[in-house]
Amino acid sequence: VLHNGAVTDHDDQGLTLARIRSAEERLAGIAHRTPVLTSATLDAEVDGTVLLKAEMFQRGGSFKFRGAYSRMTLLDLAERDRGVVAYSSGNHGGAVALAARLMGIPAVVVVPATGSAAKLAAIAGYGAQLHTYDPATERREEVAAAIAAERNLTIIRPFDDYDIMAGQGTVGVELAGQAGPDGLDQVLVPVGGGGLASGVATAIKALLPDTAVIGVEPAAADDTRQSRLAGHRVTIPPPVTIADGLLAEQPGELTFAVTSRLLDDVVTVSEEAIADAMRFCFARLKIVAEPSAAVPLAALRSGVVSGSGRRTAVVLSGGNIDPATFAAIVSAPQAATA
Amino acid sequence: VLHNGAVTDHDDQGLTLARIRSAEERLAGIAHRTPVLTSATLDAEVDGTVLLKAEMFQRGGSFKFRGAYSRMTLLDLAERDRGVVAYSSGNHGGAVALAARLMGIPAVVVVPATGSAAKLAAIAGYGAQLHTYDPATERREEVAAAIAAERNLTIIRPFDDYDIMAGQGTVGVELAGQAGPDGLDQVLVPVGGGGLASGVATAIKALLPDTAVIGVEPAAADDTRQSRLAGHRVTIPPPVTIADGLLAEQPGELTFAVTSRLLDDVVTVSEEAIADAMRFCFARLKIVAEPSAAVPLAALRSGVVSGSGRRTAVVLSGGNIDPATFAAIVSAPQAATA
Repeated sequence: VLHNGAVTDHDDQGLTLARIRSAEERLAGIAHRTPVLTSATLDAEVDGTVLLKAEMFQRGGSFKFRGAYSRMTLLDLAERDRGVVAYSSGNHGGAVALAARLMGIPAVVVVPATGSAAKLAAIAGYGAQLHTYDPATERREEVAAAIAAERNLTIIRPFDDYDIMAGQGTVGVELAGQAGPDGLDQVLVPVGGGGLASGVATAIKALLPDTAVIGVEPAAADDTRQSRLAGHRVTIPPPVTIADGLLAEQPGELTFAVTSRLLDDVVTVSEEAIADAMRFCFARLKIVAEPSAAVPLAALRSGVVSGSGRRTAVVLSGGNIDPATFAAIVSAPQAATA
Repeated sequence: VLHNGAVTDHDDQGLTLARIRSAEERLAGIAHRTPVLTSATLDAEVDGTVLLKAEMFQRGGSFKFRGAYSRMTLLDLAERDRGVVAYSSGNHGGAVALAARLMGIPAVVVVPATGSAAKLAAIAGYGAQLHTYDPATERREEVAAAIAAERNLTIIRPFDDYDIMAGQGTVGVELAGQAGPDGLDQVLVPVGGGGLASGVATAIKALLPDTAVIGVEPAAADDTRQSRLAGHRVTIPPPVTIADGLLAEQPGELTFAVTSRLLDDVVTVSEEAIADAMRFCFARLKIVAEPSAAVPLAALRSGVVSGSGRRTAVVLSGGNIDPATFAAIVSAPQAATA
């Protein structure tokens, strides 16, 4: 079905470079082309060249705006009038709320009653209506589906939607351009539901076919690694990790099909390595990385992935974190000195 | 006196655009051309356009590297062999230590025995020799002068040296270029000893003569404002402010002559406005600003300087701060939400 010439997520062409390029066009002048940062200290530490794609400087503070906004530009006028619903207490909720505000669309975001006050305030601050549910007794997808059915809203899914994946893939298109004539040996990307990883892998494999793309998960939330080993999607117990953007209990259906095919490897990092990478960003790079964003940098700095003699790009996916949580992590005794 | 064709700081040509351009040439390929950041949130808040010159991304984490390195390239071979001495527990000490390491020059940094362990460790980490003094009974300038005389070292002064001022002025030259065809209505710069302010004012007034340059001090460390009002340099009691890079008790002799002539105004901000600007940098911009760097942003955000309908550049001078201090400030109850 085509609306206004736009491709819906029900077609069968899947996730392609063309679809990512189309998302890029719809984001032009709206989303930021985020910078690539470098650090002589980091290069010396890993004995290679590291390019840091700084998505904390994206609108809304994370890459999630790319998928949310580019997906929502595909809504037809009637759908825009009726509005959208999303389920997320974190960056996707904030991104949908921000995109909705920019487009003048009503938005409902389904959030856990137990969510962080700061994050819920940020979503509400963009003007979205918060709808709370009890995570002990309700499933957020079902709550959102009921609201969507009752009020005839369009659900904006967090990752398992080809147009969301294509929007996140614009990170990879930009990175391929920013890598310069020497290209890249490898790209490290965090894996939660798999939207960012599938989008970046699709873009990179199309534009830089010799570049390895490696997914990184917290060891405590390794649903994609386990699914990859099993050869099918497995569900893990609710993960406990500081990387609150990577709490998926199983990969998405569409995303897993892409990451299974395109990721060269999926590796894991410890909680302490994640915190240490956040402290490095603070003390050395002077940027705020949320735990999920520090996950691939942790893999590189802890040696889980070697950067020696290589050109490595690391996707720092966002910088949204509760001030008290950030304060506790950077001032921990193990903190690197400034 | 000319060494190797370089201009010393004993000539009478003072601080000129040519001198700043010369410093810029000596820094090329060594210092970073730091980015200018923008924020839709900040623009909306001040009802204008704000360009943030992000010197926390400079080598060593602050603008001080520009002055230190460019000054030290003027040393002749014999002076380089003998080495340098600086007095500072903060960014100037770190910058001299880093420049010395890059140039293969021995460096002594005179630091208070009471200094922050993290900052002293950072200076020592660059390979400089630390020489402690007791701030209750000794003056750091005299301690450094005695070491310089005894060991025949060159003193690298923190601000009152035309070549240090010229090095810091490269911030202004870059900013003028980054401002684009619309130019700038005003530039806000922090004032401590006055090295950065005099350099930036000299560059901006030469390149963008219609642009106002406004110095900003903590209200608790307003030696330059008081000196300006008195028409001569006055000494204030030892200031107490979180802006530990702006603790000067009186302006420099050379710097005050320049800032008196070129700054359009000198204004002050409260401690709470400084902390608030730091929290804004953390929560909204996702960058680490040290208190001194947040001072001019505080002037703009608190309305001490109006940005309404104007194009304002703000120099964020650095991002070096003890993790515990940063944690306490960003997690204070007044913190802005992410």
